[in-house]
Amino acid sequence: MNDHATLSRRTPRRFWGWGNVDSQLDAREQATVKALTGMLGARFEERPTPQVSEFDLPAPRIAPPPALAAQFSASPLDRLNHSAGKSYADLARMWLRQAPAAPDWVAFPEDEQAVIDILDWAQTSNVAVIPYGGGSSVCGGVEAAVGEGYAGAISLDMERLNRVLEVDPVSRAARIQAGALGPELEAQLKPHQLTLRHFPQSFEFSTLGGWIVTRAGGHYATQHTHIDDFVEATRMVTPSGVLQTRRLPGSGAGPAPDRLVLGSEGTLGVLTEAWMRLQSPPRFRASASLQFDDYLKAAECVRVLAQSGLNPSNCRLLDPLETLFSGVGDGLKAVLVLAFESADHPLQAWMARALELARDYGGSYDAAAVERSMAAQDSSEHRSGAAGAWRDAFLRMPYWRDPAVGLGVIMDTFETAITWERFADFYRSVKTDMARAIKQATGQEIQVSCRLTHVYPDGPAPYFTLATRSADGTVASALAAWREIKQAANESVISHGGTITHHHAVGRDHRSGYEREVDPLFRRMLAAAKQTVDPQGILNPGVLYDPLHRPIGITGALTR
Amino acid sequence: MNDHATLSRRTPRRFWGWGNVDSQLDAREQATVKALTGMLGARFEERPTPQVSEFDLPAPRIAPPPALAAQFSASPLDRLNHSAGKSYADLARMWLRQAPAAPDWVAFPEDEQAVIDILDWAQTSNVAVIPYGGGSSVCGGVEAAVGEGYAGAISLDMERLNRVLEVDPVSRAARIQAGALGPELEAQLKPHQLTLRHFPQSFEFSTLGGWIVTRAGGHYATQHTHIDDFVEATRMVTPSGVLQTRRLPGSGAGPAPDRLVLGSEGTLGVLTEAWMRLQSPPRFRASASLQFDDYLKAAECVRVLAQSGLNPSNCRLLDPLETLFSGVGDGLKAVLVLAFESADHPLQAWMARALELARDYGGSYDAAAVERSMAAQDSSEHRSGAAGAWRDAFLRMPYWRDPAVGLGVIMDTFETAITWERFADFYRSVKTDMARAIKQATGQEIQVSCRLTHVYPDGPAPYFTLATRSADGTVASALAAWREIKQAANESVISHGGTITHHHAVGRDHRSGYEREVDPLFRRMLAAAKQTVDPQGILNPGVLYDPLHRPIGITGALTR
Repeated sequence: MNDHATLSRRTPRRFWGWGNVDSQLDAREQATVKALTGMLGARFEERPTPQVSEFDLPAPRIAPPPALAAQFSASPLDRLNHSAGKSYADLARMWLRQAPAAPDWVAFPEDEQAVIDILDWAQTSNVAVIPYGGGSSVCGGVEAAVGEGYAGAISLDMERLNRVLEVDPVSRAARIQAGALGPELEAQLKPHQLTLRHFPQSFEFSTLGGWIVTRAGGHYATQHTHIDDFVEATRMVTPSGVLQTRRLPGSGAGPAPDRLVLGSEGTLGVLTEAWMRLQSPPRFRASASLQFDDYLKAAECVRVLAQSGLNPSNCRLLDPLETLFSGVGDGLKAVLVLAFESADHPLQAWMARALELARDYGGSYDAAAVERSMAAQDSSEHRSGAAGAWRDAFLRMPYWRDPAVGLGVIMDTFETAITWERFADFYRSVKTDMARAIKQATGQEIQVSCRLTHVYPDGPAPYFTLATRSADGTVASALAAWREIKQAANESVISHGGTITHHHAVGRDHRSGYEREVDPLFRRMLAAAKQTVDPQGILNPGVLYDPLHRPIGITGALTR
Repeated sequence: MNDHATLSRRTPRRFWGWGNVDSQLDAREQATVKALTGMLGARFEERPTPQVSEFDLPAPRIAPPPALAAQFSASPLDRLNHSAGKSYADLARMWLRQAPAAPDWVAFPEDEQAVIDILDWAQTSNVAVIPYGGGSSVCGGVEAAVGEGYAGAISLDMERLNRVLEVDPVSRAARIQAGALGPELEAQLKPHQLTLRHFPQSFEFSTLGGWIVTRAGGHYATQHTHIDDFVEATRMVTPSGVLQTRRLPGSGAGPAPDRLVLGSEGTLGVLTEAWMRLQSPPRFRASASLQFDDYLKAAECVRVLAQSGLNPSNCRLLDPLETLFSGVGDGLKAVLVLAFESADHPLQAWMARALELARDYGGSYDAAAVERSMAAQDSSEHRSGAAGAWRDAFLRMPYWRDPAVGLGVIMDTFETAITWERFADFYRSVKTDMARAIKQATGQEIQVSCRLTHVYPDGPAPYFTLATRSADGTVASALAAWREIKQAANESVISHGGTITHHHAVGRDHRSGYEREVDPLFRRMLAAAKQTVDPQGILNPGVLYDPLHRPIGITGALTR
């Protein structure tokens, strides 16, 4: 079989990294990565990247159902591409030429009926099914490490269910198939002058279905922080039948059915479509980049902004170190990227009050630039300045990691949420814990940086970034170090009162924290609900909980 | 035993009506009720009100656990007061001197440990437990009509767990016991300059726990429509142990545990406390009363307001007939009660844009009154005008019903939610269906009136009010007519695509609609979750679903 054969109709992705096979860093990005790896003591060089032919995948243990065989692929590229997500550990294992547990087959169902038929077959044949959207999981959510209890495992790639099926311009909602990538669904909504405006960092490579079942965090820093509130109705195929909820703007009839679908991470069923609440594209914008000498005072400012009812669309606070990483500051001051947007009204009053609050907390800014941002008729002004720089860096960051991983560099993030009254202690404690863990695992004296990605009246969602390098510069010892660091991060956020994940999901890597965060009684209720729709436990075993009750590990640890 | 003995420490409520035993209508209210009953063809007269001594309650079938006996009451008043909620049918049955199935005992647990002990005893003794907050259910949510499968039934009144236990002024949150009535919890928050600002019509007679488990609708017409979003963490005692969620401003770790508690209506456990998100009291206000000649154009205006991102705190649209009922209009024009409030900033820009939109849709208003509302430093200005009149009427309406019920008058409401693109048809169809049903049941030519209580970007929550009178003027035939009308209302909202309840809960009366609205597969998942925490099915049987699988009826129908 041709190594690079594929049943996918999409531009092939790089199985060992972020982006498509032909994605490149530009000169400036290369310089950034060189500077960073240099700081960590590595000499930047191009290492030979992983090739499909270097992987020796075991033969599929099962045969696909004959009637659906044309929608099944066992090509090495398809299996490799579906063997893991895009966490540091996923990439490192590829650089080590040790593929994570690959699925026996990858199914590309043509329509919902095919999904139903595949689940029927899988249930009868004791085949584990891993629902697959864009494959951008960074917590071990899409790999086939399902253990010994199954005849085999397949990845169920939803790429062919990628259409916007119906648009309701009056209620501003659309029925969208779950396999649509961010750009695909936005392109189909655009002629209707509507937009979902859900822009996670993975926007190019993640799907509506993935967003919903992982409760993804999106564009809005306040108010509509997760995809959750944009879900009007869902449709999910389970081994026990189709679960459809009613299109409603709101209801108080019992516990909300959609809220059980949200966050189910492929363990209860396969989401096939959803009615989503949309927005009109913004016509008015106002943006500001604010500097603060005192980081904790800046955080206080963000708290007051979050409690003000002004609802900024962007309110992202970067600590001094983080400004350095993302190229929007000098590492000495905290930077607050603040923005308002509206399809309905000019935002002068909103921005004026926000800046007044910011001044009270020592924030400084370029008043003329703020004025320009509000006067601009197109969005070009919003792409310049710190706000623009930050946004560009934000979308490109995952690309930077690719060459670095091969040099033994660990680049990773973890994110959480905590109430405001605990935030200052939490921030200091996590930084201390992580510096210790990194020192222990790699010998390096490294601080993690932090930004607040989303903020609520009662607390922020801090997002930590770290970069370090294994002592001997090998990927193998970097991966081992990463596991220690990841366990320490889980332990740190949970023991200091945070959530194990604000918007990256639980997957496998966060289960140890999830099981401490969430009451065992609730997890038993959830298991009982799962038993109802997935009595054989074929759906994404090992994620969220494990029907086989194996010890909890993190990605890689489970498979080695 | 003294008929009026009680273990309750609260001002005794009127068991056959709304409010406390000594509540009275003032002269103006009496005139309103007289006018209304007159319009319906009844002569207003004071009928002898139900007395405790007129009810012959069966002896309790069970004995309370000896160690907790002092917290149990079997006094006739306590049993009557806990035998039903406050729906029309509940009141009518009292006027007929036919008490709904009364609980054998009413327990007033002193603390959470007593709740735990009572559930332990109840589970061992096969006693059904009906959790009771303020008893204001209008859908049969708190009555002891549990059927034959139990040794007995108790009402579990949470009134003694009514304290604010902890306040976090930084995150603006408080830990509050579930049995606190609206005024009780607001009084305890006031010294901290914080408020929950959840003001349902039942505010005086409903509790935090009741609001949470019924997903009550509150003060805000947009954005924070249900209590749901103010819940930061919950604590629920179940027969299988205590379920506690973690205080977090947001999380994406699996399906949200609190969302299963919300709407559980006492079927999964007894909520004992919750961390609630609070507000600072508003310092700035802006209010307007707008008139529209064309009701559907006014609804269009509300749609655009709901989609504007302006987030008014009040945006309640009364159709012409509804303005007559609530005394804020002449029955010829639609009235929109519009208000903004903020603890942080003046609201000129918000109101100005809202009025601009309203003018586009034909809305007219008194510009000087709007200016005065924004200039006012205290809230007195906001208590005058149509907005104030509407609010006063809103809180007093339930009181007006009491004398009318005894005259064979039926006064009732039902509420739902629907997407905007279906709203105009929905509104017309429900009005047509209900006029037909009322005509059939009572012979009267009556239109239901409608207000939009809450509005979302994708649809409104219409709230319908009806008043009619039985053909022969007796309460007995009025109750029979009410059952027909109620069934027709359930059928109408569900068949035209609405939800069976936007914020009144399911209880018993809405189960027939609930079971059509919510996918059977989800209801099986919920039943499985219930089985985990309540394996004997002792908690509020007959509400939401029925562990004994009896045919679905509505209140009264089940017990007769």
